Amino acid sequence: MFRVGILGATGAVGQRFVQLLDGHPDFELVALTASEESAGSSYRAAAKWRVSTPIPEDVASMTVTATEPEAVPDDLDLLFSSLPSGVAERVEPAFLEAGYVVSSNSSNARLDDDVPLVIPEVNPDHLDLIEVQREERDWDGALIKNPNCSTITMVPALAALDQFGIERVNVSTLQAVSGAGYSGVTSMEIIDNAIPYIGGEEEKMETESRKLLGTVGDGGVDWHEASVSASCNRIATIDGHLENVFVETDADPSTEEIAEAFRAAASQDLPTAPDPLIEVFDEPDRPQPRLDRMVGDGMAIAVGGIQQNDDGFQFNVLSHNTIRGAAGASVLNGELLADRGWL
Amino acid sequence: MFRVGILGATGAVGQRFVQLLDGHPDFELVALTASEESAGSSYRAAAKWRVSTPIPEDVASMTVTATEPEAVPDDLDLLFSSLPSGVAERVEPAFLEAGYVVSSNSSNARLDDDVPLVIPEVNPDHLDLIEVQREERDWDGALIKNPNCSTITMVPALAALDQFGIERVNVSTLQAVSGAGYSGVTSMEIIDNAIPYIGGEEEKMETESRKLLGTVGDGGVDWHEASVSASCNRIATIDGHLENVFVETDADPSTEEIAEAFRAAASQDLPTAPDPLIEVFDEPDRPQPRLDRMVGDGMAIAVGGIQQNDDGFQFNVLSHNTIRGAAGASVLNGELLADRGWL
Amino acid sequence: MFRVGILGATGAVGQRFVQLLDGHPDFELVALTASEESAGSSYRAAAKWRVSTPIPEDVASMTVTATEPEAVPDDLDLLFSSLPSGVAERVEPAFLEAGYVVSSNSSNARLDDDVPLVIPEVNPDHLDLIEVQREERDWDGALIKNPNCSTITMVPALAALDQFGIERVNVSTLQAVSGAGYSGVTSMEIIDNAIPYIGGEEEKMETESRKLLGTVGDGGVDWHEASVSASCNRIATIDGHLENVFVETDADPSTEEIAEAFRAAASQDLPTAPDPLIEVFDEPDRPQPRLDRMVGDGMAIAVGGIQQNDDGFQFNVLSHNTIRGAAGASVLNGELLADRGWL
Amino acid sequence: MFRVGILGATGAVGQRFVQLLDGHPDFELVALTASEESAGSSYRAAAKWRVSTPIPEDVASMTVTATEPEAVPDDLDLLFSSLPSGVAERVEPAFLEAGYVVSSNSSNARLDDDVPLVIPEVNPDHLDLIEVQREERDWDGALIKNPNCSTITMVPALAALDQFGIERVNVSTLQAVSGAGYSGVTSMEIIDNAIPYIGGEEEKMETESRKLLGTVGDGGVDWHEASVSASCNRIATIDGHLENVFVETDADPSTEEIAEAFRAAASQDLPTAPDPLIEVFDEPDRPQPRLDRMVGDGMAIAVGGIQQNDDGFQFNVLSHNTIRGAAGASVLNGELLADRGWL
Repeated sequence: MFRVGILGATGAVGQRFVQLLDGHPDFELVALTASEESAGSSYRAAAKWRVSTPIPEDVASMTVTATEPEAVPDDLDLLFSSLPSGVAERVEPAFLEAGYVVSSNSSNARLDDDVPLVIPEVNPDHLDLIEVQREERDWDGALIKNPNCSTITMVPALAALDQFGIERVNVSTLQAVSGAGYSGVTSMEIIDNAIPYIGGEEEKMETESRKLLGTVGDGGVDWHEASVSASCNRIATIDGHLENVFVETDADPSTEEIAEAFRAAASQDLPTAPDPLIEVFDEPDRPQPRLDRMVGDGMAIAVGGIQQNDDGFQFNVLSHNTIRGAAGASVLNGELLADRGWL
Repeated sequence: MFRVGILGATGAVGQRFVQLLDGHPDFELVALTASEESAGSSYRAAAKWRVSTPIPEDVASMTVTATEPEAVPDDLDLLFSSLPSGVAERVEPAFLEAGYVVSSNSSNARLDDDVPLVIPEVNPDHLDLIEVQREERDWDGALIKNPNCSTITMVPALAALDQFGIERVNVSTLQAVSGAGYSGVTSMEIIDNAIPYIGGEEEKMETESRKLLGTVGDGGVDWHEASVSASCNRIATIDGHLENVFVETDADPSTEEIAEAFRAAASQDLPTAPDPLIEVFDEPDRPQPRLDRMVGDGMAIAVGGIQQNDDGFQFNVLSHNTIRGAAGASVLNGELLADRGWL
Repeated sequence: MFRVGILGATGAVGQRFVQLLDGHPDFELVALTASEESAGSSYRAAAKWRVSTPIPEDVASMTVTATEPEAVPDDLDLLFSSLPSGVAERVEPAFLEAGYVVSSNSSNARLDDDVPLVIPEVNPDHLDLIEVQREERDWDGALIKNPNCSTITMVPALAALDQFGIERVNVSTLQAVSGAGYSGVTSMEIIDNAIPYIGGEEEKMETESRKLLGTVGDGGVDWHEASVSASCNRIATIDGHLENVFVETDADPSTEEIAEAFRAAASQDLPTAPDPLIEVFDEPDRPQPRLDRMVGDGMAIAVGGIQQNDDGFQFNVLSHNTIRGAAGASVLNGELLADRGWL
Repeated sequence: MFRVGILGATGAVGQRFVQLLDGHPDFELVALTASEESAGSSYRAAAKWRVSTPIPEDVASMTVTATEPEAVPDDLDLLFSSLPSGVAERVEPAFLEAGYVVSSNSSNARLDDDVPLVIPEVNPDHLDLIEVQREERDWDGALIKNPNCSTITMVPALAALDQFGIERVNVSTLQAVSGAGYSGVTSMEIIDNAIPYIGGEEEKMETESRKLLGTVGDGGVDWHEASVSASCNRIATIDGHLENVFVETDADPSTEEIAEAFRAAASQDLPTAPDPLIEVFDEPDRPQPRLDRMVGDGMAIAVGGIQQNDDGFQFNVLSHNTIRGAAGASVLNGELLADRGWL
């Protein structure tokens, strides 16, 4: 068993970490951090638990500490991070200098040349950047990032299609409110409404996806050359990001070949990894957020509506934004680190 | 004053017709038809009135007749039609043979070579097809159609942009439930959910938009050559279709030139026509369905989020699907017919 | 193992039956009926499966039969019924005459003198009415009913309080759309809205609750004498009926005594019975439908907001309307029949 | 014309004030206050305008000042206040000492003996308390309050029924999210959910209603002796509070007599007062929030579902919580002050 901790354990993603680590075969949760005000409280008191499964009793009675290297045990094998990016920018480097390995969901540093941005089923070899990272920085630890929830929904599908030579992607998203955190979207904003803007989201999809699909070269990643344009919308769903993807490729695959490519996408042999990675729906009106966000226990990618159009083809893709798109992504990256001997 | 009637007056769009014709400066509503079972009832009894403004008292007491030429007055100048397309396919020709002029919102016959599919601010000259229509068919009357609600939202914006040479359009829609009629979407389908499929909708957007943007040639319309690919979604909004549009053009206009093109889109001098036709929002998170669907009394097109991308540019567009997108569109077409001397 | 079947297996409640019987320790599902049109099809084809867990593979391939005694095996121990009440009124007697035991969720016959209306934790002794039933009717079988979903939410709480002598109950409900069946509430009716009326629901709550809390006497049930007045509302939730209950009792219990009475409510030792029966929340804003409808796997009753008022006291109660309030209620009644030797 | 100002003009209720005062026949809006940070900005910049009608152009260019007596003109006839109650508690007395007349929607001081809590159609004579107020305090101005939005929905109906001798009221509310202010309810809290708790709301309904229905006696109000118990719920509606009311009266009126009492409720001859005050619906499923909140331009009270029960009778009542229940209530009180010569 590896000893793990969570930086920012009381927030919405932090609670998902706690839920996903409950009963984990390889990770033992021994440290929880939060803001100064919560330090010293029990986790039960510090977190207003809102996940629909009950709070794990052993975690509930743990004491929350401040989010600083001095406050957590020395012998942790791995830290998960779901800090607000402004905080993470400041705090994560301190933990790395102190020698901790951090699997982070925070959006800072994702595009840094020497930081592996990883989806285990897509680009596990990007872990090699850790060597570069350790050389270039004063860190004994290691920092690994998972992409943004809207990026992570689309990229496994694109990776499966890259055998056809992706040249252009236009993507529109219908994103759930949980992606903005517990208080990120007010009810006045979203009832009987949709918001065609999520600050910074489109740029994240456009850049992160190209880094993820790129190849590790000398001292960094050569980004994929496809053009990616995103239009991001918030709608009145609790969980599950649905995306309409228009793709143009070099080759001109049939809908059957596209579906077959999705079905053939390789899974990883890791505890939290879904198998299959991509679930393909034949019904034209699926996947749907409420019905399908829990495919593969919230870790699989659901695809449907595959059809050719005048310039290429299009399809719809869905994943659970706070499981596969956030806490689950970091946990899976942690499992990859363990599996490849980085812990 | 022209004497007008409504075919299918009791349904959701029929009720909107009644609302929009209440107090109309040129049209006097004198005939209401519905299904056999309702014939003979008062409109108040036959229609379960659900529009948020009160039912006009004089209309409420009118008697509903069957939907057949024999049942309506001979001297009507114009009939509006919002029949289900299956019914309209059968019934509209009977009215046309009997010499009536019909401005129809029903989806049948929209792509017929000799049927004008018209948005007054976009292609008023397509009315010329009525001559062709009268020659080719045994009709004394005239049939004019307005496009589907999702098409009508996007096309005025595209028309304004065609000066730059539109080559390719990818569009994703977030459509309101009212577009499916009163019972078209169940609550179980849409609460905490979205449906990435609306039967036939994508094809309508892809074909109707190219006919609307086409030019009248010998005996028909030469469709616009742009490729148009649509992905249509239903979300939990009552009214207002929001669309993300990705466009590639010959020229490479700046965002300012694009906004200016939208603002310069010509209005029509007709009672129900909005001025300006297109309302441009500078705030990146607008237009939004609940806040902006009533711009121009529900007849204007709201545009925002204009930005360039790697292959061209993108923007968001919104209109009120049961006003500009249905009943209001037919009324406006009726006003155009009156203005151009076809009544 | 008892061999069981489902009458009306393809509808919303029918699908819940299939889900709840999957892996049941005592019941083996061997027969599925539906309407004439579905007879002969596989269950997968006949049911449009919409439950969020996958369709059980062995059930998916079973053949659906018509809903008539001749079409199901002779040797069934128990039939669950979730037929529309109009159909059940006609069909259930045929099965009873043919000797089948039926645990029914349909609303017909619930108030009949010789039909046990049962919640196992509340009035298991009402099963004695089966003797009366067999004497008075030409039936070899037996018919047992569970109450309406809104009644079943409130009555376990009231039963726990009857030690204080209930005299008067006013109850307001906030009911989920699934209670009306898959197509019972349109999205146009419920988005940004609430409907203060559910046909027949108030009367069901007022009568069924008094029968359930009554005592078996000669040839029937002496209903409880409390006055019960209900006001029923539909709101935009998927599952989970929330109810505000105002109670006046003979005694004047403290909030602690009330909470204690709820906590002390006896569970039943049956496979589907929750333990505890009633979950008491101390937080004033709980229970809430989305967060708490799955307490006790959807079979428990959640209570909160206990407070005294000028005339007595009040509290809130919640249960899952399609599990505890429908299919789960019938399954639990079936387990009670098995346990008491009626199968 | 009276010169008026708004304290707290940029918030949700403040924007409603601006909307309702636009084009008012007697009130000219000349002063707008907000927090320190906004002072000096134009109203357009300081308020993020979210009301669905456009921002009035002349108000948009007005300069916002700080919320203190020195910052507003001396010669104002009337100030409307929609400050948070914590702020109002501190700031309103300063304005009163400085001689301003304040019609306030804030919840502080509503139950003070010498502060008139007024609904013009219910208890206009409570204005007499202003004399008491001026005697007892060091104020040259005058303070008048309107009740909470949930109280104001119910009380006009109760006032109409008091001829039958109201003894007991149990009321359950289904309240819109706008009642909590723009950010008061998060989307995560309310989508597919309801919250059976609104802090302080039940007590407000129980106390304010009894003061409103009371009679002015020596130096204060003798509260009505009826017992009132409330249970308050938040649901996913934008505007419009719906309430189920159970009433027990001395007399035993028929449903016809109850409806007649509602219809006979006297209106006031004031610019913003609706006529009739109470709109009675015969359809059992009305009023509904989305369909009926705008009756009487959002100022009327909608009633329906009248029926007798074992202990008395029950009905449903609805009003627009941010018009009749907040800004409109204060404006109407201002009109009453003007009409009775207090300005």
